[in-house]
Amino acid sequence: MHIEVFSLFPSMFDGVLNASMMKKAQEKGAFTFNVTDFRAYSENKHSQVDDYPYGGGAGMVLKPEPLFNAVESLQTTGKPPRVILMCPQGERFTQKKAEELAQEENLVFLCGHYEGYDERIREHLVTDEISIGDFVLTGGELAAMTVIDSVVRLLPNVLGQADSHIQDSFSTGLLEHPHYTRPADFRGMKVPDILLSGNHAKIAQWREEQSLKRTFERRPDLFEHIELTDKQKAYIETLKK
Amino acid sequence: MHIEVFSLFPSMFDGVLNASMMKKAQEKGAFTFNVTDFRAYSENKHSQVDDYPYGGGAGMVLKPEPLFNAVESLQTTGKPPRVILMCPQGERFTQKKAEELAQEENLVFLCGHYEGYDERIREHLVTDEISIGDFVLTGGELAAMTVIDSVVRLLPNVLGQADSHIQDSFSTGLLEHPHYTRPADFRGMKVPDILLSGNHAKIAQWREEQSLKRTFERRPDLFEHIELTDKQKAYIETLKK
Repeated sequence: MHIEVFSLFPSMFDGVLNASMMKKAQEKGAFTFNVTDFRAYSENKHSQVDDYPYGGGAGMVLKPEPLFNAVESLQTTGKPPRVILMCPQGERFTQKKAEELAQEENLVFLCGHYEGYDERIREHLVTDEISIGDFVLTGGELAAMTVIDSVVRLLPNVLGQADSHIQDSFSTGLLEHPHYTRPADFRGMKVPDILLSGNHAKIAQWREEQSLKRTFERRPDLFEHIELTDKQKAYIETLKK
Repeated sequence: MHIEVFSLFPSMFDGVLNASMMKKAQEKGAFTFNVTDFRAYSENKHSQVDDYPYGGGAGMVLKPEPLFNAVESLQTTGKPPRVILMCPQGERFTQKKAEELAQEENLVFLCGHYEGYDERIREHLVTDEISIGDFVLTGGELAAMTVIDSVVRLLPNVLGQADSHIQDSFSTGLLEHPHYTRPADFRGMKVPDILLSGNHAKIAQWREEQSLKRTFERRPDLFEHIELTDKQKAYIETLKK
């Protein structure tokens, strides 16, 4: 996969894309990336990328021309790239969307900063508008890095077996059960006896129940998206009492 | 405000916390931050921070001791700091939570990486568990940076008036209306006539209707959280037809 990012603050990406899993994934050849300051694509003699909004009002608006020019400068072969606009009005990002994007060969991210986007960018240049949540960020950069991280870790051979458990557990659609490691007694806070029992069937049952309990307490909305077994339903009924 | 971050990958924060709004906010004295590798707080001779899970299973679990030691090493005066764990099981982050955290003097962020957290960290060390969404990230670092960005921009004097419009528009509870800037005709794609009319009352009405329309089409769930005027309700009825 190749990932192309257009941003007015390319240095924001350095620390994140060159550390940890993202660094290893590049070393393994799973993806390449390039971050470009799209100010270079302004045709304005002052390299201006934004301007006042038509109709008045506070704030600046990103002009169409630099981003159109930037995307059109890309030399890609085969299937046209997905061109992703990071914005609060976009589709809410989920693991399902990450899995969908992980199938692509070319992803292009457009990151605005402070300003709004000229609507023509939205209508005629981008293929996807993505939001990572109902909160306001200074720019699209952190949102783009978040999407990139979650997509890259799904690419083939990126995660070792030991690292892949979180993904697996997420795929049950429930929140994870509690984890414990050594020491068994930390300042008087003890690991539940069941986990020290060596009884694997009982441990599996405890974990499943804890997972259901946590989901019931914190995110009951997740139950709407999964098929529960009769046994799981019965356990949830006991929680309601 | 002082922000303290504990992470196994401190370099991930460099580019983000030293650029753009975050850099300016520090120059203005709005906040200070420090990122520490909590491996330094392991009492293990190999500086080990994780270990196998009790009860078996794939993946590693972050030990309690390094994170307890790290948080306890902080010298804070006054109100105890909020200690925030970034994790997928946490409360969903929203603008309201950002506004709440912006009132604090000290925030501490704990960022795990790959592994699960020992449950005793969750139960006895943290005050808040926050998730930025239903997707899997390699670690808590990007999630923490996202929260930090959205909180810092709310601190006094950080945003100039020109930059603050996005926040204002978000506070209506509706998605933003479309924005346009020059040129009025970009490759045949034209700015709506109404925005060039100079009729401010009509422009205001158009923008409000576009905002309602976009919310209706993309995020009708947002209507549940706001009080609509009779006129707004009537407009939404016309959209349904």
